[in-house]
Amino acid sequence: MDIQKMISEMIAGKKEDGGIKNVFFVACGGSCAALYPAKLLLEKEALNLRTGQYTSNEFVHNPPKALGKSSIVVLASHGGNTPETVSAAKLSHETGAGVIALTWTKDAEISKFSDATVGYSWGEGKNTSDEKIIQALKIAVEILNQTEGYPYYEQFMDGVHKIDRVVEKAKDKVKERAARFAQEHKDDTMIYTMGSGVGFGAAYMQAICIFMEMQWINAASIHTGEYFHGPFEVTDYNIPFMIQISEGPTRPLDERALKFLQQYARRVEVLDARELGLSVIDTSVAEYFNHSLFTNVYDVYNEALAGIRQHPLSVRRYMWKVQY
Amino acid sequence: MDIQKMISEMIAGKKEDGGIKNVFFVACGGSCAALYPAKLLLEKEALNLRTGQYTSNEFVHNPPKALGKSSIVVLASHGGNTPETVSAAKLSHETGAGVIALTWTKDAEISKFSDATVGYSWGEGKNTSDEKIIQALKIAVEILNQTEGYPYYEQFMDGVHKIDRVVEKAKDKVKERAARFAQEHKDDTMIYTMGSGVGFGAAYMQAICIFMEMQWINAASIHTGEYFHGPFEVTDYNIPFMIQISEGPTRPLDERALKFLQQYARRVEVLDARELGLSVIDTSVAEYFNHSLFTNVYDVYNEALAGIRQHPLSVRRYMWKVQY
Repeated sequence: MDIQKMISEMIAGKKEDGGIKNVFFVACGGSCAALYPAKLLLEKEALNLRTGQYTSNEFVHNPPKALGKSSIVVLASHGGNTPETVSAAKLSHETGAGVIALTWTKDAEISKFSDATVGYSWGEGKNTSDEKIIQALKIAVEILNQTEGYPYYEQFMDGVHKIDRVVEKAKDKVKERAARFAQEHKDDTMIYTMGSGVGFGAAYMQAICIFMEMQWINAASIHTGEYFHGPFEVTDYNIPFMIQISEGPTRPLDERALKFLQQYARRVEVLDARELGLSVIDTSVAEYFNHSLFTNVYDVYNEALAGIRQHPLSVRRYMWKVQY
Repeated sequence: MDIQKMISEMIAGKKEDGGIKNVFFVACGGSCAALYPAKLLLEKEALNLRTGQYTSNEFVHNPPKALGKSSIVVLASHGGNTPETVSAAKLSHETGAGVIALTWTKDAEISKFSDATVGYSWGEGKNTSDEKIIQALKIAVEILNQTEGYPYYEQFMDGVHKIDRVVEKAKDKVKERAARFAQEHKDDTMIYTMGSGVGFGAAYMQAICIFMEMQWINAASIHTGEYFHGPFEVTDYNIPFMIQISEGPTRPLDERALKFLQQYARRVEVLDARELGLSVIDTSVAEYFNHSLFTNVYDVYNEALAGIRQHPLSVRRYMWKVQY
């Protein structure tokens, strides 16, 4: 799929309806979190485009009034058949919105209600430059660049080319730390993740998809900017935290939270994007790649944790097993 | 403060800059959560206005490019001196945005950088119709109505008049339940809150400001639409959940999560907006009052829990006590 061309055709097709005014990102759980960087990029960089992000079933039951012919709706469903996300695609399609589905699955159910289907690289040996998070970012960047213009388009595309290598090196770098983390946290019943900027999506994903879903460990994601306005009162020597230190403008928020943790906590695992090599990407766009870096680095921790706990990441007790 | 008049003057003053295009809601922690209904109202009801919500320090370090003369920034700080929120007001003011500060404090620091200061009712004997959450909603409704128009303006104002009485009756109704909840949960170390729509702000506030900040209990808020996409795998007979069943379009999401909890959990506290009387407010606008109802009902639970745990809601170990 040539994303640049696809967006160009979609925008051309929308001209008679007055052009694109809204871009909505809609998905569930980890897929929704994967769209967060794309949403934040438009929210920060666009002067006129409106954007919003929704968990699919809320979008279906309570859609924005602006949804319609001037909208592009970007949805993500790995299996392509998540019922709430398929319903959201159907609803969007019926309103005349341009519908783009991100899915890993060929001939996916969701494609029936989509104007374009965008695949992505996933699993063993994937190329991070084409993974779901980055594909969604490319869609956002193309929409922005082809409507209002985006001054950092070249820098962004250069970042896309670099991210796979950054991730591979970072994953190698954390292998030993991940093994130690797994040993030290195998019996924990509660773990907090922390982050800011687009990386907050990675912190959320790690909490709900890995700790809660795949390891049955209680978890919560705390925004480092919110930490001092309530959450920090739970801090003590026993509670474990995984904190992301982003590259980009929100780094001071993360560093401030880390400084506090270093004083009042003892069980703190630090994922530092700068130390992990993200700074090779231009500062004008580096912030948008934090999510990809952290999510892929978490994978190394997750494999180690699942291994030592003898609780494979594939085990579920309810998902796909019982009615819900 | 006559909010209608204040907004009218602010909009008039912005005419030569091309009018209002963006409304940003900015605050920290519980104050940020209190702005969530106002943000969601604009996000759903507006056809052209852009909106966004930020924790103050992220807004300061990474502001949207659209922030400027065509913006209104609505901030909230109870003491009027929250450093991150004061900085956000200062930054907004410097860009030429219209700045509205919600604060309980007279002659607040934040007012120095605000075009208008809006007070609210708070504490013992407060009138919910003028509390912070509702004042923020009024600001959003006035901006919407005076720019694009809002067809449910009268119904909304009627809801404002009714919400105080609804809340008073609901608080009476849950007194015994709250005492029982406190007894049953006094030794818990982890509690989940759940909700959807504007009520998700109440679930978040209860988790971070009450359980974490004021009771040092681990907590997380789960969106009922996200529950089945990861979080529900932690569900078992021991883990406690407080689940909000909203009045309005997202109610089916909450009911679906409740149905699952009733089958696979045992320690579930239900706050049902319909049973608690919110349905006296017109269906066109009732959804926007869920946050106020739930937050005020939580108060009854929180007093009971703090009492039985002999852990007053005013106790802190770090906040206002150490450097951070």
